[in-house]
Amino acid sequence: MNTEENTLSIVALGGVNEIGKNMYVIQYANDIVVVDCGSKFPDESLLGIDLIIPDITYLLDNKDKVRALIITHGHEDHIGGIPYILKQLNMPVYATRLTLGLIEGKLKEHGLLGDTQLIEINSASAVSLGTIQLSFFRTNHSIPDCLGIALHTPEGIVVHTGDFKFDLTPVNKEYPDLYKMADIGNKGVLVLLSESTNAERPGFTPSELHVGEHIHEAFAKAEGKIFISTFASNVNRLQQVIDAAQKTNRKVALVGRSMVNVVNIASSLGYLRIPEKILVEVSEVMKFPPQQMVVLCTGSQGEPMAALSRLASSNHRQVEVLAGDTVILAATPIPGNERNVARIVDNLFQLKAKVIYGSGTVTGMHVSGHASQDELKLMLSFMRPRYFIPIHGEFRMLHQHRLLAEAIGVDKDNIFIVNNGDVIDVTNGEARQSRKIPTGNTLVDGLGIGDVGNIVLRDRKHLSEDGILIVIITISKTEGKILAGPDIISRGFVYVRESEGLMEEVNRITVKAINKLNEASVNQWSIYKQTIKQSIGAYLYAQIKRRPMILPIIIEV
Amino acid sequence: MNTEENTLSIVALGGVNEIGKNMYVIQYANDIVVVDCGSKFPDESLLGIDLIIPDITYLLDNKDKVRALIITHGHEDHIGGIPYILKQLNMPVYATRLTLGLIEGKLKEHGLLGDTQLIEINSASAVSLGTIQLSFFRTNHSIPDCLGIALHTPEGIVVHTGDFKFDLTPVNKEYPDLYKMADIGNKGVLVLLSESTNAERPGFTPSELHVGEHIHEAFAKAEGKIFISTFASNVNRLQQVIDAAQKTNRKVALVGRSMVNVVNIASSLGYLRIPEKILVEVSEVMKFPPQQMVVLCTGSQGEPMAALSRLASSNHRQVEVLAGDTVILAATPIPGNERNVARIVDNLFQLKAKVIYGSGTVTGMHVSGHASQDELKLMLSFMRPRYFIPIHGEFRMLHQHRLLAEAIGVDKDNIFIVNNGDVIDVTNGEARQSRKIPTGNTLVDGLGIGDVGNIVLRDRKHLSEDGILIVIITISKTEGKILAGPDIISRGFVYVRESEGLMEEVNRITVKAINKLNEASVNQWSIYKQTIKQSIGAYLYAQIKRRPMILPIIIEV
Repeated sequence: MNTEENTLSIVALGGVNEIGKNMYVIQYANDIVVVDCGSKFPDESLLGIDLIIPDITYLLDNKDKVRALIITHGHEDHIGGIPYILKQLNMPVYATRLTLGLIEGKLKEHGLLGDTQLIEINSASAVSLGTIQLSFFRTNHSIPDCLGIALHTPEGIVVHTGDFKFDLTPVNKEYPDLYKMADIGNKGVLVLLSESTNAERPGFTPSELHVGEHIHEAFAKAEGKIFISTFASNVNRLQQVIDAAQKTNRKVALVGRSMVNVVNIASSLGYLRIPEKILVEVSEVMKFPPQQMVVLCTGSQGEPMAALSRLASSNHRQVEVLAGDTVILAATPIPGNERNVARIVDNLFQLKAKVIYGSGTVTGMHVSGHASQDELKLMLSFMRPRYFIPIHGEFRMLHQHRLLAEAIGVDKDNIFIVNNGDVIDVTNGEARQSRKIPTGNTLVDGLGIGDVGNIVLRDRKHLSEDGILIVIITISKTEGKILAGPDIISRGFVYVRESEGLMEEVNRITVKAINKLNEASVNQWSIYKQTIKQSIGAYLYAQIKRRPMILPIIIEV
Repeated sequence: MNTEENTLSIVALGGVNEIGKNMYVIQYANDIVVVDCGSKFPDESLLGIDLIIPDITYLLDNKDKVRALIITHGHEDHIGGIPYILKQLNMPVYATRLTLGLIEGKLKEHGLLGDTQLIEINSASAVSLGTIQLSFFRTNHSIPDCLGIALHTPEGIVVHTGDFKFDLTPVNKEYPDLYKMADIGNKGVLVLLSESTNAERPGFTPSELHVGEHIHEAFAKAEGKIFISTFASNVNRLQQVIDAAQKTNRKVALVGRSMVNVVNIASSLGYLRIPEKILVEVSEVMKFPPQQMVVLCTGSQGEPMAALSRLASSNHRQVEVLAGDTVILAATPIPGNERNVARIVDNLFQLKAKVIYGSGTVTGMHVSGHASQDELKLMLSFMRPRYFIPIHGEFRMLHQHRLLAEAIGVDKDNIFIVNNGDVIDVTNGEARQSRKIPTGNTLVDGLGIGDVGNIVLRDRKHLSEDGILIVIITISKTEGKILAGPDIISRGFVYVRESEGLMEEVNRITVKAINKLNEASVNQWSIYKQTIKQSIGAYLYAQIKRRPMILPIIIEV
């Protein structure tokens, strides 16, 4: 960024104008602190891509200045990029105990655990990284052990909220650090970065406790087995499921790899209180009387390979949903997942189960982990920042968050809605946005990081729509005569055996094109290929309005 | 179906356990009446497919018995299959005036208008088709001119509701035929087929008039240009937009092919009252003062090629959305479309427009066209059928509709939840479901109807994920020696120029595999191909966890 000696610079490498792959850089002179390192799932247009992570070119170019990666909490959009990014740039990772537990699992999978410096912090920690001192404040969210960060720089205090809500009756009694927020705000905040996920929602997000009441009520009413599906990382909700099971004299079995994983980590670290003998093996589920059993499982977003989907389609080896069982979807479908969730509900009704599904607002089985408008105004009111940068949201959310900031009195001109890569520089108390650094999406496909680009994606798209048609011709080098072929091979285009007429015509067109070029004494194979491509393409489009990829292969002999 | 002389048979060829491609067959002895002929959009798994229509094998096998196709209303899921189906089986088409207008447009596009017998009916019509007599009743829906059908057969009356709601204050004053419904019910209904789209929603769907009030209010408040986007086929809503424009002294321009098309048809047939000189050309929009202009456009579901999407991304040649303009999305995003709609809202906010978006229940800018639970019970109460078949919905909707029918007193055992193809036979007043006829999805890709099957789709899926790798080797016929190659061509896999090492290794592996087979004196090319495929596949997966389609091509010389 070519920072001046006495300049504070703030830039998002991911997380603005999107939900996902959060990564923020706060730099003062030669000290860079990175906040979060998330991943994002690709949309349908990115065919075959597994994951998107931030492009960290800037950090690689300034390797020697990077002091640390600080993680606000353990959700994928904040930690999912860690193994991929650390392979490119090793840096010490600071996070709370539960968050570290989840990160360690990832590092182990990627064989990076030994090489990574992990430092446990909590809301009382003080961390000094060159010219930047960090203090923290506890927040509530749909995973425990979340932090907001105050970065004390020579230029002033920068506050990064992380993801938060104000849960004033938290399940785990870990209350939000209101006094600390007040104290930080009272000292004077130069820049606030606050999350915007729910900036479109009026009101105050209900407490997680609200879900617990509904879970207990449903458990008390249920007659057969109970299946309850939710986000594995929502440890407080898992606690409420376990508590409700205990109160209604039911055992609990865990189904789904991430559910087992999170319960293990969270209980061994003390974030989950599991009464003795309440957990039973999955293989035991069908042996207990149904009214004594709760199955806690993954798949509440309709993920086709997850536990709930397999249970709904009677595809689980050990557990069956039977008539009269109750299935609770303790989650609201995220936009884009509705169809998959609906498919599961259909299947469950076909098994004659009772199903509690739909919007969590209606069923009471889900509350958001993100602050609604009144809570966002509360955070803004605590911090009363000179400059405000709404983060963690798509444009309309950032836009609505801006209006909230204006409403509590932040100066219109001091609010920056940025893109990833837009740098905010603050010198002598004055902020401006005048430069950009390169950033963007790095695509992960299998083990390849960043090796799939636009051409490969365009080809995948083309192949996915109409398939491929390969035309092989052996031609004599000297006379240009066809010695063998054309042979036509196609995949994903039409079923060849049922399209013989079409294929014969493609053959004829190819021979005609070659003969014509021979007569004209053309001798560049590239022209042959281009001509064959065009002739066949035009014929097929006229015939059946499809445009397969056409690949002429000429073998010279 | 091999019907007995005196048997009434009812079967869905499409429309149950799905939303879309409605087609129902009612047969008495040698007389077949077909109700509706819809299409459905493919989900993402059907790569490259344009449209799905019902498989009409049964009708083709019983060509001589098919008397007519009766259309309930002009939505795509009821008329979209007509041109494709009529190409396979010509039959007279009965529909109301507006519906025929929309069908004619389709037939013209497919060059079928001259060959099709179109018969206009209305709610007062009586149609006799062999042993089956048809009468009709008017219903309300999100398109005008909708019919419910009573099919009077020797076995009794079958009622098909079509899509409906009870709009007791319809915009066009076309009130639902309550007396007629009462009269039909009073005569005794043997079987009711009623639509289930909103069977999950409690209450009574609000009148379309409700939307008009909100439109007028928003128009009165707006300062710049107004853009309002809705379903083109919702003629009553278009009317309310035009009325509000007139009241607020604004002109109206139409943007979007289907908007222009529907307005032309509906106004020329008298379904839309357009005040003189209120319509202006699109090219005039930017010439009028912004406070005098309404742009009525398509694209409310976020369709990437439709008008609203182009306007939001400043991609329209003649019209621009400017700061201070108001954009109204008069539609609730259908599940699956939320992300595309959100993208448009983001873009509009970036243009500094005011945007009215989100759930129509909240904004008042949309009401459903389908009956909610209380209206479904009202229809059931009018008809008091002996047998009930919930149609037009996914399983959970059919399931909820069943519960409503039970609640109003239909015998549990007389409710049939069927799949497409399940035949209900009624003889001597007794109904049973014991046989199936073949049916399913016919896929339309370009001009091909039904020529893309599972193998082609599986290949497209494979190609879309990791692309294709083609290995070409010229081998001497006699000795099995490699004369040329291996040459590697890939598409949609990796960018070859940046993966030279990988490609060289693929080359080496291929040569090694061939030499080994030569040594073992194998001389079947199929074994060569299989071995090359496996060797390369295993290597690539171990290296980069991708599985491209591998296509070895061996040229014998």
